[in-house]
This record gives sequence, structure tokens and C-alpha cells, in this order.
Amino acid sequence: MELWFSEQHTDDVKLSIRVENILCSRTSDFQRIDVLETPEFGRILVLDGVIMLTEKDEFIYHEMMTHIPLAVHPRVRDVLVIGAGDGGTLRELCRYSDIEHIDLVEIDSEVIDVSREFLPTVATAFDDPRVHVEIADGLRYVRTKQSCYDLVIVDSTDPFGPGEGLFTREFYGNCYNALRPDGILVNQHESPYYEGDAREVRNTHRKTLPIYPINRLFQAHIPTYPSGHWLFGFLSKKYDPLADLDADRWNARGIQTRYYNTDLHRGCFALPNYVLDLLDTTPDQRGL
Amino acid sequence: MELWFSEQHTDDVKLSIRVENILCSRTSDFQRIDVLETPEFGRILVLDGVIMLTEKDEFIYHEMMTHIPLAVHPRVRDVLVIGAGDGGTLRELCRYSDIEHIDLVEIDSEVIDVSREFLPTVATAFDDPRVHVEIADGLRYVRTKQSCYDLVIVDSTDPFGPGEGLFTREFYGNCYNALRPDGILVNQHESPYYEGDAREVRNTHRKTLPIYPINRLFQAHIPTYPSGHWLFGFLSKKYDPLADLDADRWNARGIQTRYYNTDLHRGCFALPNYVLDLLDTTPDQRGL
Repeated sequence: MELWFSEQHTDDVKLSIRVENILCSRTSDFQRIDVLETPEFGRILVLDGVIMLTEKDEFIYHEMMTHIPLAVHPRVRDVLVIGAGDGGTLRELCRYSDIEHIDLVEIDSEVIDVSREFLPTVATAFDDPRVHVEIADGLRYVRTKQSCYDLVIVDSTDPFGPGEGLFTREFYGNCYNALRPDGILVNQHESPYYEGDAREVRNTHRKTLPIYPINRLFQAHIPTYPSGHWLFGFLSKKYDPLADLDADRWNARGIQTRYYNTDLHRGCFALPNYVLDLLDTTPDQRGL
Repeated sequence: MELWFSEQHTDDVKLSIRVENILCSRTSDFQRIDVLETPEFGRILVLDGVIMLTEKDEFIYHEMMTHIPLAVHPRVRDVLVIGAGDGGTLRELCRYSDIEHIDLVEIDSEVIDVSREFLPTVATAFDDPRVHVEIADGLRYVRTKQSCYDLVIVDSTDPFGPGEGLFTREFYGNCYNALRPDGILVNQHESPYYEGDAREVRNTHRKTLPIYPINRLFQAHIPTYPSGHWLFGFLSKKYDPLADLDADRWNARGIQTRYYNTDLHRGCFALPNYVLDLLDTTPDQRGL
């Protein structure tokens, strides 16, 4: 039997992946959760029909979400991660011995359960004693937090369904308050290429621009996400992602990575003109 | 009627695009040539079932093939383009008033005919008086050329079918001889992501490494190519793509681009670790 999973990237484009086996298929209080076994990408986690990660390329997304801020901020002790129930972001964070405390706030406990059962190379760090899991809505959770995190990582799904509240101005304002005076927030920022995704890039950028004095986007090649061209936001109260990069300090840590390196760190903030136009930045902000 | 074109990226992955209309479908002496009208990407040129370009994202490929070497080499007068029958590379080259002569060597005249008829925004420059079209095998053509080009652009199809000879050591040696002592060669260098493509990246890099003293790869996001992560080679006798970039000179030209800018120029040579490992470069070559 030929079995293919397809994800519509727009009404007129789809990526299809051959499936060997459906390992898990269930419906939680929030969404449908599937884990597929595939010959090309290994296991794939699918939420409401949308690929969240594949074993083959998840390292790209998770390395870029974590090592970029950690190569900039000189002293990350307390981290808040919102979403990220698959555990990939936690795995990367837990490689830093000087991180003392990580709060992971995931709305859907079943995403964690499924990941721990079916994605053992991703969900490696839930038992780390520094990790505290809270099953809650990230939007509500951050409302009560004041100046207590060095780093907030918003590892959300797309801006519809359970992740919708994580794309509001209120949420980003509350995250600002939850950060210490030199805190950094990193968020997944969608793709600039297809029209609907590009609209979300612009909306999120416009919402966060008045809140964070430093607000830069960086990019990565993630083959299984729509268009393969993915953006992340670096939103910061004090540190600049390039001027405050301490490459020697990061390289001295000896963390082995498969995508991130400190050269790439410098390179990934250089965006194509059509993305700069989408963000409507002035030439000064573009560093030209 | 639902009409979809699919390209297999591997046996187990395919990208599918909704088709409104088939504008042209013919078989030349070398290959099957199709032009499809699509709602997402505009017109698409397909050779032997493989997407060569789409109207929506061809600017990325063509800008990166041309503006990178032209922002480095201070005095490009004579250019050889191999392949590129669609005219996109020519279009970008012809924006430089100081280029005096362009030889375009395309093996299949029907690709040019089809592009002129169906891709009017791409095939814009064939009537430029500086352009000289030769219908010939690029491999044979360069054998007779000695030190007469400042820039050679190898805008080939994939390393099978009519483009196969353009991936041989002999061809790259002959291109070296065809270049002046400060000449630059840029080639399309496939994708590092899927295993079969990655093997070609490594093979081409190993073939060209002993020939060109400067041999660096750079990357771009091209959504309709397999994985969206595409590489290009910068092979040079004298100029380094970063140390010899003259950003002020290039920006003073006032050439409007939608992907390329001189910040991105610096950024696109910073490759992910897994690509560096594929190229088997030492830490020194990685600039770490």
C-alpha cells in the first residue's frame, strides 16, 4: 500500500511525504496529535495536520531557537519556555550547565506524553531536575510574572488554534515584564515566502516593535516547514544579537552542534531585501 | 478538473503545485520541455520533469548567481554563461553597463525559443547587443578558450541528462583556463539536504578543490528547489568573496534587487555545520 501524508502550504502547493506506519493518532482537548514513521524524515510529529517537527531536521529549528540567545546573553540562569511540549528546545537548553531553572509552560499535556513515548531523541530532558513543567495557557501564565527570567523562548504552533493567544500584543507585553532588565525573548516567527505566512510575519513584527528596543529577525533553512525559509525573532531589552555576540565564550563551551556555529550566527541576521521590505524597516535598521 | 504537477525530491518526498494550464509541452533533441501556468508561482519552466524556474522565485537564484561575483570583481568586461537558456542570468548581467561582451552557450536552442515565447519577464536580454548566443555543448566550447573571460557562470541543470558533462573535472579545468588570471567562476552547486543531492555537492566540491585556489560555497533560500536550501560555488583565481567584496562600490551602482544585498553577501557564506562537514573542510577553512 502507498501511504502519503500531505501538508498544504497554501491552497495551491503541498508537500507530500511517504509514510511507513502511523505510530500514534489521538485527539486531545486541544488538537489532533499524530506521529508518523517515514523513510525520509524518520518520525514526524503532526498537530492538526501541520508538521511540528521531523527527526531529520528538528535540530535546525531547536539549535537556532536556543544557541543564538545563549551566545549573546552572558549569564542566563532562569528560562521560560512557552509551548515546546516536544522537548527539543529543553534538550538544547539543558546542555548549558550554568542554566539553573527552566519553566516549561505547555497548554497540552498530551503533546508531552506523546513526545516522551514516541520521540525519545527529542524529549530527552523532561527529567532534568532544573526543568519544571506547568500545564497551562502561556498567555495567562506570563501575566503574573515580573522581572524573573533572563530568557523567554516562545516555541509556539502557528497563529491559529491553541497557539493563537501567543501572537497577541498583550502576550508580548507581558513577556517583556517577565524578563529581567537585560532579558532576551526569542520566538518562532513564521515564513516570509507564502502570502498568508508573510502576513503573520509582518503582524507579529509590528506588534512587538513598540515593545522591545532591540528587535531583529534571523533566518534558517528548515526543509519540512513551508517554503523551507523560516524566521525567528530576537527581541531584547539590552543585548544586540551581533554587537553582543561573544563567539569566543560560546566556542569555549565546546557544545557540539549540527547547524549552529558562531559564523552562521553573524550570517543569519542578514535578510533578503524582500524580507526587509516586508518588515518595512528603514535602511538604517538594515545596517546598510 | 484538479490538475497538479509533482516533482519527486526523493523517492519518498514530493512537492506538488496546482496547475491552471499547460502552455507548452514539447520534446527537443535533448529533453522534454514544459511550461505550466500556476496560481501560486506564475509560470514554471520544467525540463525532464524537474522545475528549472518559477516566475515567483527565480529572482533569488538569478540574483545570487550574478551579483555575488560582480560585487567582488572590480572590472568584469567579458562573461561566459553556460546553460541558462531561460535568460534569467543574462537579464541580471545586462544591468551592468560596464560589461562589454557576454557569450551564452546553451546546448538546447529550444529552451531559448520556449523561454522567449512563454517567459517574457525572464528572457528579457537576448536582444542586448552585448549578448552572443552559441548553441553548443559547454564542455566542448570551453576546451578552446584561453584566458579570455573575467567571469564564467555555470547555470547548469542537474548532474544527469544534458548537463552531465558540466559536472566533470575536465570541464572545471577548462573553465580555469578560459578565465583571466583574476577570473571568477560561479556555479549552481545543488542542495546539501537530501542524500542524493548532498553526494553531488560533495563530488563537485572535491573535483573543483584542487583546481581553484579560492573555493567557497554560499547559500540561498529557493522555495521551489528540493529542500529550499540551495548552494552555489564561488571558485576564483585571485579574489576572495568576502575580503574583496567592495560593498560601497556595488551599492553606488544603484541596482535594485529583491533578494541580494551586500549584508546578505557577507552572511550567505556562513554555512551550517552539517554542510561544512559534508564538504569535509578543516576548522581553518571554516574561519572558526
